[in-house]
Amino acid sequence: MISSILLALIAILVAAKLGGALAERLGQPAVLGELLAGIAMGALPIAGVHQLEFVAHDRTVEALAQLGVILLLFEVGLSTRLADLLEVGLSAFLVATIGVIVPMILGWLAGRWLLPGAHPFVPLFLGATLCATSVGITARVLKDMNRVGTAEGQIILGAAVIDDVMGLLVLAVIVGMAGGGESTGAHIGLVTAKAVGFLAGALVLGRWLAPRLFRVASRLRGRGVVLTSALVTCFALAWTAELAGLAPIVGAFAAGLVLEGVSFSELLPEGDSIEHLLLPLSAVLVPIFFVHMGLLVNLGALAGGSIALAAALTVAAIVGKQACGLAVVTRGADRLAVGLGMIPRGEVGLIFANLGLGLTVHGERIMDQGTFSAVVLMVMATTLVAPPALKWSIGRGRRAAVQDA
Amino acid sequence: MISSILLALIAILVAAKLGGALAERLGQPAVLGELLAGIAMGALPIAGVHQLEFVAHDRTVEALAQLGVILLLFEVGLSTRLADLLEVGLSAFLVATIGVIVPMILGWLAGRWLLPGAHPFVPLFLGATLCATSVGITARVLKDMNRVGTAEGQIILGAAVIDDVMGLLVLAVIVGMAGGGESTGAHIGLVTAKAVGFLAGALVLGRWLAPRLFRVASRLRGRGVVLTSALVTCFALAWTAELAGLAPIVGAFAAGLVLEGVSFSELLPEGDSIEHLLLPLSAVLVPIFFVHMGLLVNLGALAGGSIALAAALTVAAIVGKQACGLAVVTRGADRLAVGLGMIPRGEVGLIFANLGLGLTVHGERIMDQGTFSAVVLMVMATTLVAPPALKWSIGRGRRAAVQDA
Repeated sequence: MISSILLALIAILVAAKLGGALAERLGQPAVLGELLAGIAMGALPIAGVHQLEFVAHDRTVEALAQLGVILLLFEVGLSTRLADLLEVGLSAFLVATIGVIVPMILGWLAGRWLLPGAHPFVPLFLGATLCATSVGITARVLKDMNRVGTAEGQIILGAAVIDDVMGLLVLAVIVGMAGGGESTGAHIGLVTAKAVGFLAGALVLGRWLAPRLFRVASRLRGRGVVLTSALVTCFALAWTAELAGLAPIVGAFAAGLVLEGVSFSELLPEGDSIEHLLLPLSAVLVPIFFVHMGLLVNLGALAGGSIALAAALTVAAIVGKQACGLAVVTRGADRLAVGLGMIPRGEVGLIFANLGLGLTVHGERIMDQGTFSAVVLMVMATTLVAPPALKWSIGRGRRAAVQDA
Repeated sequence: MISSILLALIAILVAAKLGGALAERLGQPAVLGELLAGIAMGALPIAGVHQLEFVAHDRTVEALAQLGVILLLFEVGLSTRLADLLEVGLSAFLVATIGVIVPMILGWLAGRWLLPGAHPFVPLFLGATLCATSVGITARVLKDMNRVGTAEGQIILGAAVIDDVMGLLVLAVIVGMAGGGESTGAHIGLVTAKAVGFLAGALVLGRWLAPRLFRVASRLRGRGVVLTSALVTCFALAWTAELAGLAPIVGAFAAGLVLEGVSFSELLPEGDSIEHLLLPLSAVLVPIFFVHMGLLVNLGALAGGSIALAAALTVAAIVGKQACGLAVVTRGADRLAVGLGMIPRGEVGLIFANLGLGLTVHGERIMDQGTFSAVVLMVMATTLVAPPALKWSIGRGRRAAVQDA
């Protein structure tokens, strides 16, 4: 059994490093190269190479990929100050709200326009698929460009957390509508209470508890106690977030914020930092996430997708999130960068599309595979367009700043 | 799905650090505490706690544990010089040979004595379960005590590699005997050729190829290229070793030896080393292996084991490997430490016992569950006795050296 995991890891790591290096040589973010390397690896069966076909659906690889994105958001949380995040709180809230409402309306319009004969639920589902931002891509680009601590970075991250809560609400509403809707109100209240309760609890209780726990843990001797304690904090909050209905990465980000209160300089040898200890872990695991994301793109399954619908959804997704930029009220923040950073859609959109696919009215499916494929194409397009666009926009901002000076 | 992995990792990491710290406080090696923490976690269902029962058999946890021991032997290989290993080559070969023959005879005698009515194959199988040393435990103790580079350390590691090849031969003979044995001779030849071919190929070709590959890889830009290249080398040789019929850890150890020829000081920033980059990865993954090893001990299943047989096998296992010490011809090497370091038995012994369990003559099973449990008890006892014994013996050697000076 271990031999198949070894083969998968060899293939993924080689693909990630070659793809990443090639992308960087072309002036693009490494993450774009990793995604494309994954897509290329996923397309190997089309060329008759089947030896690596198992990698996309291997449960261990999937778990490692998930640990990778959890670690990425943990690192991003560690380099975020809660005070900075709260300072841009209003902007983040407005960005998240506009970023849910506008794409939803545009997606609904696209559905009404291009699928005139469909059940009224279908355009609603299409709108819902456009709500939630997939923050992994943006977090990676911000991190690689050292822009996590900027106003734009903080607004995007704050908005992504709020966005995840709102995505839950949209899901609750939609499931309620599809299921008949008698107890929707109470259900929405419960979902909101759990999500908000987790965030508040993690940040208040966690920030009080973490320094105390680390002081106790540091009394244990032995190799790697501090690193292990940090990882356990991260995994514990990711796990609790999932229990609360949120994405595990939201918990991991919260864990990073929580550990801001721990003074690692007392616990670690001179010159070492928790970020530095995490680097080798994330250097291996994070690319696994992005290559795996590329691997899951099944080019063959896209053949039946409506190109017109996919294009309309992609435009709605991109334009819809650009409206976010207008909601930024923080001075000096780059509105274009915020809008571009909110573009990537991911698993949440696919979850909604999947729900729509399973929906039946009077025993008949109301959404077909072609519509689903159009959503997948939209997810792919937004995922691939965001890294270069964001990099360009940040570079533009820097160039302008240099000219001003 | 990710939530169960997160829960498993939290439980394992907390258990490992608590167990390891407690053992160290009592003057014992951390690995003993990790093993006992795993056994305790595995016994939770007896106390009515079932929430963590899935951890022992979760495939992802198992894969992470395997990656942990692969990484451990890779690290040990990195701190081994091939020249030093070849220098103690004769001692290592004699130690491995005596360490296979004497325990096999003692195990066979124990079977003949305590299971007088059993099929003649049964004592043979019992003897075979005592052959192969499980080097993970010893490697960990040597590494934690900074003794990998000593003559004892090198002899044990060299013997463990040869031991693995000999274990393959014993397996080939036994399977041949059980299966009828017409083509045993050719089969043994093939098995030997594959194993020796892998080792020679890896060391000769690998040491020529590795510096060249690393020079090419270092031209790729991007984070973590050197670490990733080192891991890919390790995984590739572990994978190839398994293809050649050897244990993946033998391949990982060979990968460490191969990378000795690469001058990382040119490839890494000042003050960084590949060992240093691997530390955070191994600090997390290596304890997972040892806790998982403890977890697999099913105390409930041991109830039916014959205590007399288990005790006799354990004595045979320990005494048999002490004979190894006498075969050490290298001057200045501590013979007792070598003998104690060869004590732990592990998965190879269990594989043989399992083969015996599945063996039928005229449709009847010739080995019962009680005999199998006795083997499991022997594996447990040798695993638990080795770390404190080895630590004591190394400490004794050091004290004697101080008194001489």
